[in-house]
Amino acid sequence: MKKYACLALAAGILLAGPVFAQFAKTEDAVKYRQGALFVMGQHFGRVGAMANGRVPFDAKVAAENADVVAELAKLPWAAFGPGTEGGKAKPEIWKEQAKFKEHGDKLVAETAKLAAAAKTGNLDSLKAAFGSAAGTCKACHDAFRSS
Amino acid sequence: MKKYACLALAAGILLAGPVFAQFAKTEDAVKYRQGALFVMGQHFGRVGAMANGRVPFDAKVAAENADVVAELAKLPWAAFGPGTEGGKAKPEIWKEQAKFKEHGDKLVAETAKLAAAAKTGNLDSLKAAFGSAAGTCKACHDAFRSS
Repeated sequence: MKKYACLALAAGILLAGPVFAQFAKTEDAVKYRQGALFVMGQHFGRVGAMANGRVPFDAKVAAENADVVAELAKLPWAAFGPGTEGGKAKPEIWKEQAKFKEHGDKLVAETAKLAAAAKTGNLDSLKAAFGSAAGTCKACHDAFRSS
Repeated sequence: MKKYACLALAAGILLAGPVFAQFAKTEDAVKYRQGALFVMGQHFGRVGAMANGRVPFDAKVAAENADVVAELAKLPWAAFGPGTEGGKAKPEIWKEQAKFKEHGDKLVAETAKLAAAAKTGNLDSLKAAFGSAAGTCKACHDAFRSS
């Protein structure tokens, strides 16, 4: 039994390594990912307000906000490690980890494109990149976030 | 009276401009600043664990985390605009705005130094910069955060 317990422990450390290394408790992981996603969402919304014509387009402001979005988009995923179920996260996240990771990776890629589009100062490019990134948010929320 | 009301309104818009432009409601501003500070704190803690010898020093990991800290340190301050009292924020923030801004500016400067120190790969430089940045956190919390 001891041998299996050790193997299980070792496997647990391998799987959970980054999380246990990074978060003292599950509650912290939940607060972290919610915080990162909320802050990102606020900046994303400011880009969206320009992309959708609700506020006048200001290329500098759009680029600043899109940069923050792209940086923050990298953060939340490490906080969905094993044993951190909670918040609005559906259990499917931990059952379909490869699919969930695909969504996260896609957001990182799409928000990098958004930041690049914002830097061109071209509103049409910004609109296209925003629409694409927004679709990525929605697809992941539909699959993995409870309402 | 109307004239004064207009002047007050204009002053209010000037003071509150960035906040009303950025946050749909006070609750969002509170969630935003708490989220940004919490995420920053987690990464700051990871740098601190190395600076204080609780985990082995890994220059790459320290630099990555310090970069996130420096980026996030810029964000919370815009979310303490007029009319956004709440959370653990002491009312003094809105009474002593210049002093509060000094603390925020100091954190931005200190965390930029921390990120630069982390890039040197020298543990002693990291320790010094971490201690300095941690002192900045504490001074602001002592003055402006209720426990």
